[in-house]
Amino acid sequence: MNSFGRNFRITSFGESHGRAVGVIIDGCPPGMELTAEDIQPLLDRRRPGTSRLTSLRNEMDRVEILSGIFEGKTTGAPVALMIRNENQISEDYDELREKFRPGHADFTYQEKYGIRDHRGGGRSAGRETIGRVAAGAVALKYLAERGISVTGRIQKVHGKTKPDEIEREISLAKEAGDSVGGIVEITAVGCPPGLGDPVFGKLDAHIAGAMMGIGAVKGVEIGDGFATAARFGSENNDQMTHDGFLSNHAGGILGGISSGQDIVIRIAVKPTPSIARIQQTRDIHGNIVEISVGGRHDPCIVPRIVPVAEAMLALVLIDCMLEHAKYR
Amino acid sequence: MNSFGRNFRITSFGESHGRAVGVIIDGCPPGMELTAEDIQPLLDRRRPGTSRLTSLRNEMDRVEILSGIFEGKTTGAPVALMIRNENQISEDYDELREKFRPGHADFTYQEKYGIRDHRGGGRSAGRETIGRVAAGAVALKYLAERGISVTGRIQKVHGKTKPDEIEREISLAKEAGDSVGGIVEITAVGCPPGLGDPVFGKLDAHIAGAMMGIGAVKGVEIGDGFATAARFGSENNDQMTHDGFLSNHAGGILGGISSGQDIVIRIAVKPTPSIARIQQTRDIHGNIVEISVGGRHDPCIVPRIVPVAEAMLALVLIDCMLEHAKYR
Amino acid sequence: MNSFGRNFRITSFGESHGRAVGVIIDGCPPGMELTAEDIQPLLDRRRPGTSRLTSLRNEMDRVEILSGIFEGKTTGAPVALMIRNENQISEDYDELREKFRPGHADFTYQEKYGIRDHRGGGRSAGRETIGRVAAGAVALKYLAERGISVTGRIQKVHGKTKPDEIEREISLAKEAGDSVGGIVEITAVGCPPGLGDPVFGKLDAHIAGAMMGIGAVKGVEIGDGFATAARFGSENNDQMTHDGFLSNHAGGILGGISSGQDIVIRIAVKPTPSIARIQQTRDIHGNIVEISVGGRHDPCIVPRIVPVAEAMLALVLIDCMLEHAKYR
Amino acid sequence: MNSFGRNFRITSFGESHGRAVGVIIDGCPPGMELTAEDIQPLLDRRRPGTSRLTSLRNEMDRVEILSGIFEGKTTGAPVALMIRNENQISEDYDELREKFRPGHADFTYQEKYGIRDHRGGGRSAGRETIGRVAAGAVALKYLAERGISVTGRIQKVHGKTKPDEIEREISLAKEAGDSVGGIVEITAVGCPPGLGDPVFGKLDAHIAGAMMGIGAVKGVEIGDGFATAARFGSENNDQMTHDGFLSNHAGGILGGISSGQDIVIRIAVKPTPSIARIQQTRDIHGNIVEISVGGRHDPCIVPRIVPVAEAMLALVLIDCMLEHAKYR
Repeated sequence: MNSFGRNFRITSFGESHGRAVGVIIDGCPPGMELTAEDIQPLLDRRRPGTSRLTSLRNEMDRVEILSGIFEGKTTGAPVALMIRNENQISEDYDELREKFRPGHADFTYQEKYGIRDHRGGGRSAGRETIGRVAAGAVALKYLAERGISVTGRIQKVHGKTKPDEIEREISLAKEAGDSVGGIVEITAVGCPPGLGDPVFGKLDAHIAGAMMGIGAVKGVEIGDGFATAARFGSENNDQMTHDGFLSNHAGGILGGISSGQDIVIRIAVKPTPSIARIQQTRDIHGNIVEISVGGRHDPCIVPRIVPVAEAMLALVLIDCMLEHAKYR
Repeated sequence: MNSFGRNFRITSFGESHGRAVGVIIDGCPPGMELTAEDIQPLLDRRRPGTSRLTSLRNEMDRVEILSGIFEGKTTGAPVALMIRNENQISEDYDELREKFRPGHADFTYQEKYGIRDHRGGGRSAGRETIGRVAAGAVALKYLAERGISVTGRIQKVHGKTKPDEIEREISLAKEAGDSVGGIVEITAVGCPPGLGDPVFGKLDAHIAGAMMGIGAVKGVEIGDGFATAARFGSENNDQMTHDGFLSNHAGGILGGISSGQDIVIRIAVKPTPSIARIQQTRDIHGNIVEISVGGRHDPCIVPRIVPVAEAMLALVLIDCMLEHAKYR
Repeated sequence: MNSFGRNFRITSFGESHGRAVGVIIDGCPPGMELTAEDIQPLLDRRRPGTSRLTSLRNEMDRVEILSGIFEGKTTGAPVALMIRNENQISEDYDELREKFRPGHADFTYQEKYGIRDHRGGGRSAGRETIGRVAAGAVALKYLAERGISVTGRIQKVHGKTKPDEIEREISLAKEAGDSVGGIVEITAVGCPPGLGDPVFGKLDAHIAGAMMGIGAVKGVEIGDGFATAARFGSENNDQMTHDGFLSNHAGGILGGISSGQDIVIRIAVKPTPSIARIQQTRDIHGNIVEISVGGRHDPCIVPRIVPVAEAMLALVLIDCMLEHAKYR
Repeated sequence: MNSFGRNFRITSFGESHGRAVGVIIDGCPPGMELTAEDIQPLLDRRRPGTSRLTSLRNEMDRVEILSGIFEGKTTGAPVALMIRNENQISEDYDELREKFRPGHADFTYQEKYGIRDHRGGGRSAGRETIGRVAAGAVALKYLAERGISVTGRIQKVHGKTKPDEIEREISLAKEAGDSVGGIVEITAVGCPPGLGDPVFGKLDAHIAGAMMGIGAVKGVEIGDGFATAARFGSENNDQMTHDGFLSNHAGGILGGISSGQDIVIRIAVKPTPSIARIQQTRDIHGNIVEISVGGRHDPCIVPRIVPVAEAMLALVLIDCMLEHAKYR
């Protein structure tokens, strides 16, 4: 389904080439100051064309708050946020009407629904993440007012860690009509202990689901993640001291509940599947055909995933904070 | 919360040293043949003491079906499964009443709830997974009747991949009063295309949440996972052919929806935090103290995670199959 | 929360004097033909000013479909429906900023949220029901395509059953600066047996919750409802025959599951609380004050409840049909 | 589904003639003192055979707390409550294996599931309510500790209001092999204002759903309910004064949110469908047959509905209190 969260519950709508994309926030705490200016900067950051490294679709993506605000404050009613789609050239996508792009959702949507909006990826497009970032901006503001910050950064692209090397990898991929993947690290500082539930509702389970729900993400790890699999317990345990812990291999979560340490997550982002290089695929009639995906495509979406991942972590945290508040 | 799934919804209960552990399955399809004999073998496999590599707590763990069956078949009513706890020696755990074990949920439970059943880990114990495995057995049977198999295997322990090396690593760790982690790979064969929903309810998002909801799991990857971050798109895309795909880097999921290929998942299991080696920690009064966790503890829980991970994947798949059935 | 339904899940937003009201439908079956023309007639029917008996706020209430449609058909993606608010004169409501209208949500919203959009009732206004009717139109179309019709009618107003008497009662109330209540009956014809779940999710439980969730509704009965309390079992049981039942006292639901007979519901609608007659109340400072609620208020909202109640029943039925489809 | 509530979430299991009935409470606040002695008296009150007016099945119905308690207090983990079934004589019900009892769930269960546990009503039996009463006992204790009481009473049986007349009506019905219905009124005193959510999650919507989810309930009204339909607004509005309201026609709920006044609900209970008098019905082969339902059946279940209705109201209230606590 298209909702996320139990208490600060968002419901997303919209396709790449429909009329609008947006989100409804249900459960936004009342009395919080909120204007479009709290949201717009994060949308601008997510927007393509704001970096040399990302694609060129040039939309303004102005958010409109449709409901839930009275005299500048949230009322407890649903906050609906809408961003009109502009600058759509559906004809760009005519080839994709019948061909399934390798590595893309085209084939599986067709199998699942028997119908598919092929224009710009439709519902599976990166543009869907605008709603997440808009709702995430509200969550981030709420967290910031309580001393909690959430920050993402590019850790690696195509195996490289330095910005100039990363930029070069992306440029080379672009020239070759190809794409590259990478790793994003997101950290939350200032979280109180006690967030998350044991068993199925572990904080890390929520986070893993949230992150893997971002398109192109193929792996998630908490704290030292996969590296812990090669360790002794005596190396990996975070021993305690008077005011906290001697290390943070656990990434701020023990037994599914936040410990008060920094929450540290890394996600693996696969290379963009839409590439100009010729690939073999099928069309909806079952024929084997060649495809070269033209148009405006990022050779690397890792930079654009950063604000989306921040938004998702913020949404998980606010949700768990409201859940935890029930018992205080 | 202690429920998992939307359609085949399980609710788990029980602590390590309470009277019983168990699970209610709500949404079990009617008309399915089901007896305790369908469930018991999987519980036996999960049970400690069934391998030289695991701990020695010797309980019979006999499942009792309390409801939902009439003349050997499911009726559509909730299937309640209960396993009595036996062989409990609560005194073993008296030291843990006041001390927080490093790497364990002790500290965070105390912070969250202000009260904690310290005996054998209480609700955070591995024993909680019995309910998952019992419910998973029902799911696995349902899947098997539809030609879908789910199989887990140990991929690595402490960096080693061969059984004899793995066994040696675990023995060495045990002798040293230490523990080791590892990696488990789970594969589902025979899944139809179309399972999972776009956006937040992606099949991989459900799987990641399910896996990270298992205690000690610190990382999840789908298909080639973190390795894809270092690739070109042209390497990573699975090109299509008449009857499927030329490769399966995606691990059977595209755009959050199953493609019909094998679903492949790997999870990172941290080394057991309960170790005999002396560590520094805090007690509930805030004192810094030393702790050596005695008693029956696995030096490596990777083998015992295997059936739990299989169960969780089966639970995700049956849930998505029932969800998908709505539109057919 | 502001969502309704499990499978055909709607999420509503908007206040009387905000920018827009609307709804997102999540879980709308794919491949269904849908245009604004399927929805607009039902909104027009709900709209004030369409009858001599209802209030005069004259808005066009044009629905815009923002997402979820591709080439005239639903895709399985969320269908977002928005109706702009126009013709708002917030100044009309300045007196209500500080005074709590008797019988209205003013006092309880203030208590719950500590903030309240007083303009035209804000979120508690009848205008909120536009989203329900819009989503209900989609549900009604789906049901109609499967041979199921849902029809509401005014059964009584202020104790009268004939249209001319009803009209007279409303006119008299209006002249007196007062209001009157009534009873609405809603019937669904053509429902298959098997809808609804036993225990908490009974079809009648869903219906009762849906109906009581409409503002001003104070009672719900299924079939013969309260009249059954004064009967013998031998009078009340619907005996069976070859092709159905000899009577329908049960209103089409047995044990919480539809029987295939007509589903019959009646709801009690209280008289509109906003009246011109002077009443005693409190203001937000705790003073006792007098209030006469001016402006455009219906002396009887019973006629306008009819399409809302139809919509809610349709939403329950489609939801239960999709739920039931899982097991077929 | 078989769960109820969002925050204090109960999941029920068990059939009349299975091994046990019971309930899991998920979300029970930690630190609450709880023993079987808090629950048993309410089960005893619900039990058949405790009054001359109810049926004779003589079971002890001893509750066992399986989990969630540590040293006499709740821990925040699920509280599982189980009551073994005893004294079952399945043979009593052999005639019902093939015949559908008029007014009963037999026909609709068969239609829905294609399989049916006919013994004593199976899942649709009154015995299912034991889980509700057990969980309700925990909720009632929580409410009582916060100064909130919930009390039900028989208002009418077969049109009579005085106890001696009621007793006579029931005796006459029993002698005639028939049954009678009635009305139960439930009142909650001491509820804080602010419980419930606007729109779909209104407190009265939750209550109506909860009450209509009890077997045999065919109508629900809040406050003056159906009587308000025949009133003027000026009669029906509860005017305000310094410390509250001048009347309580609304039954303690305004705009779906509790006002702090007493919450007053009435429910219509149909006459028990199981009667000795001969009725016409169908069997599973489609034949028209006669049926006389023998065995131990209450001629009037109104007295036994009282504790169930109290339990359901308590469950709604605790759930809404925990929900509301999120925003404080």
